[in-house]
Amino acid sequence: MTSSSRGSAAWLPADRWQDPERIERWRPLLERIEARMELRPEGPGASALQELVGGIKMLTGLSPSLTLKAGSPLLILGSPESAARSSGEWNTLPLAEEAYVLRIKMADEDGNQACPKAEYAILRGGSERGLLYGVFALLRLMGTQPHGPRESDIAEAPRNPLRMIDQWDNMDGSVERGYSGGSIFYRDNRILPESDRIIGYARLLASVGINAISVNNVNVHREETKLITSSLLPDVKRLSDIFGRYGIRMFLSANYAAPLELGGLDTADPLNEDVKQWWRRKAEEIYAAVPELGGFVVKADSENRPGPFTYGRDHADGANLLADALAPYGGTVMWRCFVYDCHQDWRDRSTDRARAAYDHFRDLDGRFRDNVILQIKNGPMDFQVREPVSPLFGAMPQTNQVMEFQIAQEYTGQQRDVCFLVPQWKKSLDFDTFLNGAGSTVKQIAAGKVHPFTRSGVAAVSNIGDDDNWTGHHLAQANLFGFGRLAWNPDLESDVIAAEWSALTFGVDTPAAKFVEELLLESWPVYESYTAPLGVGWMVQPHYHYAVDVDGYEYSKWGTYHFADRTGIGVDRTMATGTGYVGQYAAENRDIYESPAECPDELLLFFHHVPYTHVLKSGKTVIQHIYDSRFEGAEKVERWIARWRELESEADHERFLHILRRLEGQAENAKQWRDVVNTYFYRKSGIPDERERMLYA
Amino acid sequence: MTSSSRGSAAWLPADRWQDPERIERWRPLLERIEARMELRPEGPGASALQELVGGIKMLTGLSPSLTLKAGSPLLILGSPESAARSSGEWNTLPLAEEAYVLRIKMADEDGNQACPKAEYAILRGGSERGLLYGVFALLRLMGTQPHGPRESDIAEAPRNPLRMIDQWDNMDGSVERGYSGGSIFYRDNRILPESDRIIGYARLLASVGINAISVNNVNVHREETKLITSSLLPDVKRLSDIFGRYGIRMFLSANYAAPLELGGLDTADPLNEDVKQWWRRKAEEIYAAVPELGGFVVKADSENRPGPFTYGRDHADGANLLADALAPYGGTVMWRCFVYDCHQDWRDRSTDRARAAYDHFRDLDGRFRDNVILQIKNGPMDFQVREPVSPLFGAMPQTNQVMEFQIAQEYTGQQRDVCFLVPQWKKSLDFDTFLNGAGSTVKQIAAGKVHPFTRSGVAAVSNIGDDDNWTGHHLAQANLFGFGRLAWNPDLESDVIAAEWSALTFGVDTPAAKFVEELLLESWPVYESYTAPLGVGWMVQPHYHYAVDVDGYEYSKWGTYHFADRTGIGVDRTMATGTGYVGQYAAENRDIYESPAECPDELLLFFHHVPYTHVLKSGKTVIQHIYDSRFEGAEKVERWIARWRELESEADHERFLHILRRLEGQAENAKQWRDVVNTYFYRKSGIPDERERMLYA
Repeated sequence: MTSSSRGSAAWLPADRWQDPERIERWRPLLERIEARMELRPEGPGASALQELVGGIKMLTGLSPSLTLKAGSPLLILGSPESAARSSGEWNTLPLAEEAYVLRIKMADEDGNQACPKAEYAILRGGSERGLLYGVFALLRLMGTQPHGPRESDIAEAPRNPLRMIDQWDNMDGSVERGYSGGSIFYRDNRILPESDRIIGYARLLASVGINAISVNNVNVHREETKLITSSLLPDVKRLSDIFGRYGIRMFLSANYAAPLELGGLDTADPLNEDVKQWWRRKAEEIYAAVPELGGFVVKADSENRPGPFTYGRDHADGANLLADALAPYGGTVMWRCFVYDCHQDWRDRSTDRARAAYDHFRDLDGRFRDNVILQIKNGPMDFQVREPVSPLFGAMPQTNQVMEFQIAQEYTGQQRDVCFLVPQWKKSLDFDTFLNGAGSTVKQIAAGKVHPFTRSGVAAVSNIGDDDNWTGHHLAQANLFGFGRLAWNPDLESDVIAAEWSALTFGVDTPAAKFVEELLLESWPVYESYTAPLGVGWMVQPHYHYAVDVDGYEYSKWGTYHFADRTGIGVDRTMATGTGYVGQYAAENRDIYESPAECPDELLLFFHHVPYTHVLKSGKTVIQHIYDSRFEGAEKVERWIARWRELESEADHERFLHILRRLEGQAENAKQWRDVVNTYFYRKSGIPDERERMLYA
Repeated sequence: MTSSSRGSAAWLPADRWQDPERIERWRPLLERIEARMELRPEGPGASALQELVGGIKMLTGLSPSLTLKAGSPLLILGSPESAARSSGEWNTLPLAEEAYVLRIKMADEDGNQACPKAEYAILRGGSERGLLYGVFALLRLMGTQPHGPRESDIAEAPRNPLRMIDQWDNMDGSVERGYSGGSIFYRDNRILPESDRIIGYARLLASVGINAISVNNVNVHREETKLITSSLLPDVKRLSDIFGRYGIRMFLSANYAAPLELGGLDTADPLNEDVKQWWRRKAEEIYAAVPELGGFVVKADSENRPGPFTYGRDHADGANLLADALAPYGGTVMWRCFVYDCHQDWRDRSTDRARAAYDHFRDLDGRFRDNVILQIKNGPMDFQVREPVSPLFGAMPQTNQVMEFQIAQEYTGQQRDVCFLVPQWKKSLDFDTFLNGAGSTVKQIAAGKVHPFTRSGVAAVSNIGDDDNWTGHHLAQANLFGFGRLAWNPDLESDVIAAEWSALTFGVDTPAAKFVEELLLESWPVYESYTAPLGVGWMVQPHYHYAVDVDGYEYSKWGTYHFADRTGIGVDRTMATGTGYVGQYAAENRDIYESPAECPDELLLFFHHVPYTHVLKSGKTVIQHIYDSRFEGAEKVERWIARWRELESEADHERFLHILRRLEGQAENAKQWRDVVNTYFYRKSGIPDERERMLYA
């Protein structure tokens, strides 16, 4: 393979195994496949077969013979006679639609032979989609087990009903907060024809279990507003069909002001009868063209987008308007809660952007239709390197919710710096909100296990573009992979996910894969250690959000401040003396966040304004922590580079150089952050570094 | 007139006088004109007649009868018989090419009559161009004398040989650092056809004596590089002809790398024979198409532009290469000295961008051809609200120089805030460099009176675009007017220029004109008082350069720092302890700048790092000066608004509202600057305001 096509294959099978013994061990499963299913040409079942046969060929060079029989979605790999001996329970267990079971049987069960071979495998899906997920699971097994198959009984169903990706692609071909080139979907205000890139993306998403995608930016501009008009709906249908082949339901981001922009109405008031009628007819038209459409994603009354506030209505009125229109067709409204005052006066320290989502939405609980889902960003601010969990999540027992993450590394290195976000997401998912007693973790709420949600799950902003390797930085692929894996099963450990991706990408058990796994796991703490400290956030160049600018947002309208002066830093969000934001949490968390002594170090400055001399739980003062961690972070990146250089012969040259150049860029960025942050705080505090390192007074 | 066309007329005659007596007093001069000249259809003489007749009609409604006779450029207004009695000396005085003499004779010389009338006027030009300048002078007199003509003998010649405007227009239609819409010259990478806007601009420039213009951005991109190719030269010629009618010689900004980009050579080494030959042939081709072309403006080795440094050559080599090619055709090379390291490391406090031009060019004195002019920005940095004069100006006795100003208000309010720059320019022009003894002022050097320059003068970056009123803010027209007036005669006082422009624009002796004059004169100090203090510069948002961002450039690669810490602020550029920049001045200035006690307050932080508690000559501490002046500046803008509101009935409504809206925007900007700068320094210094005003700790 050229490394170029290797980049575009991402973690899917691409390289032939070099070890003949490994092929031998799998061979009994790979030469004969019996498929029991109805083979619809455009269905996920057909894709499952295609992926399995193609994957086997890629990895081993073998070309399985294929027998097709009627029946429930089920595949037998290897001898059907042996498989027939398999236990009836396994074959007849009732499965959820997206679930699969996979039994791999070894010829020599005690495994004492020098080269144990597989005997047969049975893969059943709860549906064609379940089968597809099972095929990808099997291919992942093949790619991640170094020595060959092992006797296995695997039964899996996704924990989150909705596992969604949001594209922020614009029809002019740009991608908002995109760091990987242009859109694979649009150019020059047209939807592009079917392409290897679009199909390839659908394959990648399905391979990690994603089952929904919204294909245009939540900021819906003039051209994208037209996606729901008769001139574009045939192209929308074409796109939806591609995703449909991989079991992915497509959504559109809708413009709340569409009745004005498209309908010629003079209002978009959600209680106006003409407006309701317009949306009803529009939904009828849309679903006539695209019957399987998932529904709408809506960003309303947010960052200057239109919304119900214009008409003195609330968000329940706004969301229900669309929900009622979509309901007859089974459509869903994903209503984003990223609503805050983006014209804040920095002089006013009583207003707190962190409070906004909760203050706007909490009291509307119970007012939303059943086919509305509130989409809530993981933190109360905006995808910073470190934030507490949004207190709104789980706080509305009668309202469907999904948590929204950002795979695109807007504030976390922009796919120029490595920042593997799985550990960050797990921190949110594992967070216990205590909103329905202990154990009310975010992941349980998202899975619909805490409140009686009818629709729920997780969504995330995509990080891909038309760069050959999809994600700009090759290692940023791990975040897309990792989001899908976590969305499927939030209990998966970060190291398992990192190891899977590294093995699938750099070869199982290779020195490169091992180092990359280690680097990925270190990368989020490292990125945090040279950027904004202790949960205070931002300190980035306005608009760009990559390079350091400590005061970049300090006197802006965006509500994102650190309040550093010559004696201290941080935002007082306590109930006692601050903005009262802490009061939005359940008592168990409230008590911890309210107290500077109890508050976790990494969130201290998010919740408290403290002197530079405040002593952290770590035993260090705040100022010394700032100095130490900036120095350590930048040093760590240098050590990565040194180690990566040693691995030159272990990775294909183009990919080696690509990663080296990115790491070198990251080292520059880390040094600039280190020196600017340290100098800024030294000039402001006057407190020298205990270890007398260079501070550029 | 509609106020819209009033805006586009700028200060040229547009409104009919309302006072019949005023017309009566001038009438004897305005009914009969005898022109003694050869009338070439495309010459400045024809333009002079056209302007005179058109201007008279606009202001008075009169239509003069015109008699044309052979002879030197001379106009007789009123009775030729009376004029014949005029003294012979006046009529035969040998005049420089651009000079004019104007005699206005009153019917009743003692002026005791109730309504004294003019008898005749004689206007002679040293050439058609001199005559054109005389006509505009006469129209200006008509517009600025409230009660009618006065007996006058005026003899004027411009003090600066070169009085040049630089457009920073790009062929895509944008204007770099343009704050008045798009280009009037280009769109979609084509030169626009002749238009009222282009002609109107030529008229405006000629009316204040501008005699040269460079029509494309000094940053010469791919498309503009092609201006010197056969496909575009016919359009260049067409443009040049328009300016030629108004006595303005056109230049082009040239790309130093043209031999590579256009010529297919693999080098632009100035000592390479192929390169020399390429430029010689190119010059031959250019001048065959545009024989009157003034020459090239070149920005080389500056802010990532190509230049001789690439080939290990110096700027004399580079400039002479082009100069030799242009010499056979009388062409001139304007070689910009804006050369500095734009990849500076902010950590390195020994490097000083202010030193760069002098360090790069000073020792090349004597090495440049006679048709090279070094174009030197007025200050050593970059058009800040306050800078010392560039020490390079006048420091190369054997090298032609022009001083470059910026009419475009890049760092001085971007034509959203009022900032009348004439007083700032005069400060530079009046500065005594002592480089050839006392009296070696910048204006004398520019005029070629100190060193034996063969070519010299002043140049400035234009502030116009295709906005109807040319300059975005209507009052910004005064800067374009003022630059021309000062270029013609640097001894003109700021108040005279402000009064002329205000009277020509808002009517002589009107309350609006009087207030605008006052506002203009206050505006530079006011802009300075709410922005970066005491000469330290910047504190603006990177790239945009308008809104406040105190640390915006503090940790950047641009070499523009303030070094504020918790105890003090400023850049130590002394010889004793600093970067040594002070040593680039003659002893008389050096001694003043080296000493914090002697250094003028307004430049203190440009030359010295001092504690916030340092006491200024004004008796205030630095920190109290920062607080006081920020508060006063913002207050002043509020007072302007209050006063302007009172004048609502005194200006046409559209212009009234336009100026009101801009002033309101300026008030917002001033408040943001005030509060951010004050809060920044209060947080850093911990020193409260003596007067206990709000500092937003």
